[in-house]
Amino acid sequence: MDLNLMRELSVKTDSKIVLLVVDGLGGLPLEPGGRTELEEASTPNLDALAARSDLGLSRPVAAGVSPGSGPGHLGLFGYDPLRFQVGRGVLSALGVGFDLQNSDLAARINFATLDDSGKISDRRAGRIPSEKGEELVALLNENLKIDGVEVFITHEKEYRAVAVFRAEGLSGELSDTDPQRVGLEPLPVKPQDDSPETRKSAQLANAFVEEANEILADQHPANTVLLRGFGMHPALPSFEEAYKLDAAAIASYPMYKGLARLAGMQLLQEGAGIAGEFETLKENWHAHDFFFLHVKPTDAAGEDGDFARKASVIEEVDAQIPGLLDLAPDAIAITGDHATPAKMKSHSWHGVPILVNSPYTLPTTDRFGERPCAGGSLGVFPAEEIMGYLMGHALKLNRFGA
Amino acid sequence: MDLNLMRELSVKTDSKIVLLVVDGLGGLPLEPGGRTELEEASTPNLDALAARSDLGLSRPVAAGVSPGSGPGHLGLFGYDPLRFQVGRGVLSALGVGFDLQNSDLAARINFATLDDSGKISDRRAGRIPSEKGEELVALLNENLKIDGVEVFITHEKEYRAVAVFRAEGLSGELSDTDPQRVGLEPLPVKPQDDSPETRKSAQLANAFVEEANEILADQHPANTVLLRGFGMHPALPSFEEAYKLDAAAIASYPMYKGLARLAGMQLLQEGAGIAGEFETLKENWHAHDFFFLHVKPTDAAGEDGDFARKASVIEEVDAQIPGLLDLAPDAIAITGDHATPAKMKSHSWHGVPILVNSPYTLPTTDRFGERPCAGGSLGVFPAEEIMGYLMGHALKLNRFGA
Repeated sequence: MDLNLMRELSVKTDSKIVLLVVDGLGGLPLEPGGRTELEEASTPNLDALAARSDLGLSRPVAAGVSPGSGPGHLGLFGYDPLRFQVGRGVLSALGVGFDLQNSDLAARINFATLDDSGKISDRRAGRIPSEKGEELVALLNENLKIDGVEVFITHEKEYRAVAVFRAEGLSGELSDTDPQRVGLEPLPVKPQDDSPETRKSAQLANAFVEEANEILADQHPANTVLLRGFGMHPALPSFEEAYKLDAAAIASYPMYKGLARLAGMQLLQEGAGIAGEFETLKENWHAHDFFFLHVKPTDAAGEDGDFARKASVIEEVDAQIPGLLDLAPDAIAITGDHATPAKMKSHSWHGVPILVNSPYTLPTTDRFGERPCAGGSLGVFPAEEIMGYLMGHALKLNRFGA
Repeated sequence: MDLNLMRELSVKTDSKIVLLVVDGLGGLPLEPGGRTELEEASTPNLDALAARSDLGLSRPVAAGVSPGSGPGHLGLFGYDPLRFQVGRGVLSALGVGFDLQNSDLAARINFATLDDSGKISDRRAGRIPSEKGEELVALLNENLKIDGVEVFITHEKEYRAVAVFRAEGLSGELSDTDPQRVGLEPLPVKPQDDSPETRKSAQLANAFVEEANEILADQHPANTVLLRGFGMHPALPSFEEAYKLDAAAIASYPMYKGLARLAGMQLLQEGAGIAGEFETLKENWHAHDFFFLHVKPTDAAGEDGDFARKASVIEEVDAQIPGLLDLAPDAIAITGDHATPAKMKSHSWHGVPILVNSPYTLPTTDRFGERPCAGGSLGVFPAEEIMGYLMGHALKLNRFGA
């Protein structure tokens, strides 16, 4: 999406937009001739909405390329995922609510197990419980002292935490220490370019690992840390800047909260489960004009290869559609950040079904599913354009040119 | 469209192309489940042609963005409408047949009414008749003298005229004087950048308004001028340069004549009404190898919210198709510059049905309409690519690469 064009044409109005992201929505038939997860699910409400909507297949990132959640969501928010690359560390820091500043360097921490020969024997430290993880994070925060940099460590979940390095002149062009396999030694952090900032940052990160190893020496199985996904805060224009939208996010996982915060969205305290998230939407309906609502379990079911469970989560979403429509949003998009076909047990590059609803649509079918979407009036198009369509359908864009 | 590629591959041949632009052709159903204007119209000739054509939906400018006529047509002619932005003043100057030079600065004039306190009380001077407008233009041309610049004023219609400033070193980066609402004072022309050219041009434009006010002082209700849409002639490669086409235009409104002249097309003196325009095509058939034929009343009916009238204009176009086919064009495209759904009473961002006919097509249906086009063999694609398809279908492009 050309965000300068959006900035130029967008106007503040009372109309309200909902972007419902059913994570990993896109699927595949298990066998030729079969149905996808979405096609197999019984979705009377989504089907009825499809009969009044524009349909299409949205394509994340590039042909054949399976996106992670970061680029998948940046695209949905209208940011070019190839231009704005966000390190996993940054996403985690934002997700735990850390107030990341522009000059901060973030990295993801896994607590892990080193054996006597200095090799990794468990990359997740025996999946220590969250209480233990919190305890170890406190221990590190108390004892770590590295010259020339402040380090903030925040616990995420179980064996996962985030480190934020605060100093002037840092860089995120650093390699991971995680060798990705057990039986190998942890790698040193290596600078990925030759700038003084990057060399300095690599030194600090290696000093951090060395000190952490000393502090954790007696904490087997969590006697070391692996660092991954180094990165700085990317300079994304916010939703307010790009679209003049006062945007709010409802998501249950840290990563998606982090992505929403990158776009300048306000995080709403979400209710439990899918129904709880829609309840949160309802409660906050009058306070914002854009809502990003993220549903996670479809993706998890797809990753587990559980076709039936994924279809059943989609049915759970379908049950919430009447309540969503009762709010009378001016424009709605329902899609995923990527496909996660149960058949592949992973994210994939396939087109993701999308439905865009407003009073101004060209419906082509009365079913929401991959195949009906392939023949829809939106065609097969880059996910980055979805925000443009939503802004148009909500009548929030001025005409371009005389 | 990559015009350098077109320039490299295009060859001069005897084959002939017709680009029939039915302005604002795209539409929407008034109610879910209903038909669009084009689908509702009885179009036996277009349907029969669709059965022998490639179909698709062409998308102007960007997702969700409703284009003005300028960017809409630049896209149809293969120019990137985001790169080549043309001020309304330039379009008007070209439309009235003014021989605009590359260093000229053009702006649109509205005659308007100033009240005793210096505020605008009518932005259209009581919609003075064209004869009065002509008289006032003559008065201005006789009496205006501004040091360092020649000014040419040409009457357009009723309260509308065009001013062209001719001097070296001008710039079009100027703001309008029209405050867009009555009850406000006219705005001064402000430079939009800090270059000497722009500051000089702002001074000249403000001097123009001051002198015009003196000359028009006794001409209530047309006792002032508002200036809008400043701009210089954009450096578009002509159809001859880009495509090696000797192009001619048949259009009844100044704006579309202006757009055609920007592309270097020769303006043909058009007959009256839609039938008259097709008659002009027939009379000039042997003199050119590309014809742009512009039909306006569909857009006007859409803007008026008159679904039935828009459908009826489409039927009028349909009646001309047999005569068009009798000329045996080698390639034909029939589309619009944008959608103007009667439901919205305005231009919109929706896909515009397009039919491309030649002996080399992949037909998918026997109906011309938005929904049949959504499933066509051209897909949903940028309007800028239409000229490429026309050149291909007319066998006017060499193979690219060995």
